[in-house]
Amino acid sequence: MSITVRGRDLTQLIGTMSFTDYFVLLLMGRPPTDDERFFLDACLVAIAEHGLVPNVQAARMTLAADPDALQAAVAAGILGCGSVVLGTSELAGRMLDAAIARMRESGRDEAATAREIALEYRERRAPLPGFGHPLHKPLDPRAQRLLALADERGTAGPHVRMMRAFEAVVADVWGKPLTLNVSAAIPAVMLDVGFPLEALKGIPILARTASLLAHLREDGTQPLGFYLADHAAEAVNFV
Amino acid sequence: MSITVRGRDLTQLIGTMSFTDYFVLLLMGRPPTDDERFFLDACLVAIAEHGLVPNVQAARMTLAADPDALQAAVAAGILGCGSVVLGTSELAGRMLDAAIARMRESGRDEAATAREIALEYRERRAPLPGFGHPLHKPLDPRAQRLLALADERGTAGPHVRMMRAFEAVVADVWGKPLTLNVSAAIPAVMLDVGFPLEALKGIPILARTASLLAHLREDGTQPLGFYLADHAAEAVNFV
Amino acid sequence: MSITVRGRDLTQLIGTMSFTDYFVLLLMGRPPTDDERFFLDACLVAIAEHGLVPNVQAARMTLAADPDALQAAVAAGILGCGSVVLGTSELAGRMLDAAIARMRESGRDEAATAREIALEYRERRAPLPGFGHPLHKPLDPRAQRLLALADERGTAGPHVRMMRAFEAVVADVWGKPLTLNVSAAIPAVMLDVGFPLEALKGIPILARTASLLAHLREDGTQPLGFYLADHAAEAVNFV
Amino acid sequence: MSITVRGRDLTQLIGTMSFTDYFVLLLMGRPPTDDERFFLDACLVAIAEHGLVPNVQAARMTLAADPDALQAAVAAGILGCGSVVLGTSELAGRMLDAAIARMRESGRDEAATAREIALEYRERRAPLPGFGHPLHKPLDPRAQRLLALADERGTAGPHVRMMRAFEAVVADVWGKPLTLNVSAAIPAVMLDVGFPLEALKGIPILARTASLLAHLREDGTQPLGFYLADHAAEAVNFV
Repeated sequence: MSITVRGRDLTQLIGTMSFTDYFVLLLMGRPPTDDERFFLDACLVAIAEHGLVPNVQAARMTLAADPDALQAAVAAGILGCGSVVLGTSELAGRMLDAAIARMRESGRDEAATAREIALEYRERRAPLPGFGHPLHKPLDPRAQRLLALADERGTAGPHVRMMRAFEAVVADVWGKPLTLNVSAAIPAVMLDVGFPLEALKGIPILARTASLLAHLREDGTQPLGFYLADHAAEAVNFV
Repeated sequence: MSITVRGRDLTQLIGTMSFTDYFVLLLMGRPPTDDERFFLDACLVAIAEHGLVPNVQAARMTLAADPDALQAAVAAGILGCGSVVLGTSELAGRMLDAAIARMRESGRDEAATAREIALEYRERRAPLPGFGHPLHKPLDPRAQRLLALADERGTAGPHVRMMRAFEAVVADVWGKPLTLNVSAAIPAVMLDVGFPLEALKGIPILARTASLLAHLREDGTQPLGFYLADHAAEAVNFV
Repeated sequence: MSITVRGRDLTQLIGTMSFTDYFVLLLMGRPPTDDERFFLDACLVAIAEHGLVPNVQAARMTLAADPDALQAAVAAGILGCGSVVLGTSELAGRMLDAAIARMRESGRDEAATAREIALEYRERRAPLPGFGHPLHKPLDPRAQRLLALADERGTAGPHVRMMRAFEAVVADVWGKPLTLNVSAAIPAVMLDVGFPLEALKGIPILARTASLLAHLREDGTQPLGFYLADHAAEAVNFV
Repeated sequence: MSITVRGRDLTQLIGTMSFTDYFVLLLMGRPPTDDERFFLDACLVAIAEHGLVPNVQAARMTLAADPDALQAAVAAGILGCGSVVLGTSELAGRMLDAAIARMRESGRDEAATAREIALEYRERRAPLPGFGHPLHKPLDPRAQRLLALADERGTAGPHVRMMRAFEAVVADVWGKPLTLNVSAAIPAVMLDVGFPLEALKGIPILARTASLLAHLREDGTQPLGFYLADHAAEAVNFV
């Protein structure tokens, strides 16, 4: 008796494939190339852990309310991975694809195209996806590391080049420096190694699940859930 | 063309039945008696709103992360209605049923039975379900109100009497006063009017959904989600 | 000691206010008018129960996987109340408001305005919010009942009149009859009694929570969760 | 500027650590040993994908209701990873630990200890955690593969030996063959390489998140959500 997954014998995959490889196999029906694996691992590591961000707090509070239902706490944490927090990678990826298409059509270079598009965003007062960070200024070390790795491995292509072009013009267009953040770097490096745009959203969700599980295990021994809630409630002086 | 729900023509129910009545019809296949309706409304009102408790904070943080997905924020809030927070009503109801059965079997009165059972909980260092409150001391005004209403309407029966018997002995058994809280009063008044024990858990969940929707509507105009999270994170001095 | 909710003593509300009234108090800071209460109850009853729709199945399957975590099953059910399923009431409400504003500005009547707007939707191949139903043809009895009640009670105003105007032109514009469904009737009757547009989304979520609790209680005695899943999986002949 | 995670510079981890390694670092504060990594990858691959099981259906239905809220669909799927479905690994792990402790105390061997404990489960009509499977009979190929890998790599220790001892006696104790399933093999191989018992529950949740993301991406192009629900509803002939 055998179990077949994506046309392969599951028994043969157990013990020969890493979890990262298997994720790509499930997602795309084929294992990753070496570059895809390298950058998928790099991106997952870059964004898994963020400290006590809101969705981690929501998860810890939920665990405090039912310590036996770990799945409920993880789900509460994942619900906090909404468009505002985690959808930016996909938005930035779409912006890159549109910019590259426009550049090719117009025959101009990255710099001119990026400036034109940045000005359009600026004019309609829309934020440029992947730019700006409350903490990491002037540089987001995770983003710079991902882009540097793309240069090192020789995988930097049109998407990384275009993202660098945006980075070069934003300070001028907005009149102040804006950090190229990790949500800009992820689509740039992943799209250049062939990862599909529509699968980008899955990267932060998988990464954060790993981090949530670690936080929730810690909460089992060192409960913060109700403490966090009490402290936050005091802050608004409610009741 | 007609739509039938629990053997009735839905069209006839619209405009003639309150939401509370319809909830009972869905749950039990028949509308409530007058006393059931009265106490179900009273209990739902008693426990719907609790201020910025942890699950409300989790819901607000989730809304902040995806303002378009109201359902995700409500779900995150409901996930925080776990056994620790909301399961006590059912536990207290089971304790009452067991106490009444033991009293009838033994031929003793409420006082003796309640003392015996309280001593057993005390001995195995278990909390007595429905007793104790961090804030409402020595009395929980919601609980006292529900029990007083049962007296006023003449519906107080074996469950309310037994709960009062527990209230009378706890201070002596534990060596300190313990508030009879709203999770003790709900099963007492509801079981005396014939509401089934297994449906008790639904009362706090429905009540809290109403309150969550109100909090989330407020958050739409006066967002607290990320503010709460920031403040709580500072409190533990993370990162 | 007292508990204050929206400026009122909670103890005084317990036993004097229905759950529907309290929901409005939490939502708006004041109790409903008689007409608001009447139509809120009517709408909640109209849409609470839909049989074994997808989100009810998701909830039952979730309960089967952890029978002790009722809150997780309810949350799974609420997650299925997304924009496609339940957001239509708000969309239809926005369409009504826009239509009434345009009518007043242009000085034309409901019929002309509704036809113009319907043609615009038709032209850009967008569905008209609140029109069409796979089952209820040519009439949705719940929608007709709600509109008839607005006539009976004399609350039908600009929103009901405009919705009727849309109903009168859709068959002509689309070249086939399209049912005015319950998601069109709810905003029409609620907006005419002064219920705020931004609170409309809460009505289906609260209603469905009541229905989910009833389904999940039934599943406790008559489990369908895994059976449903097995049958559905057979249907697509997976693995 | 640098970001520190578990005492390490995050920038140095990006591009040098796999996602599996980073998960262990977050969970335990140190990277995995080679054997831990090997078996964690093997277990994650073994249980990530199960076809159209109930929680995958719940996730697909939820996506159909709000295609923009991927996080809500993943959360609905994770909520279905409750104790019945995924808690067995931990239960089986606890049984193994208790059995090993009893063996050491009594001075008897695995065979005698396993038989004694199996008889105790049988007597109180409790299922033996990790034994039995509706489909995989007489052997679960994933479980056998994991145990064989433990033999091959020389990591099989007291937990694998004790699980094999249970496998050898169950048919005799229950009077019929019972498959040693993947939930028995996971704790056996993981506990033998030093993975902590309390972290076992996280393995299926992380694995299933990967699989859910793949199913949901597929559903984006080939929607099954509402189709599944319709078919299941027909099966029970509801409404």
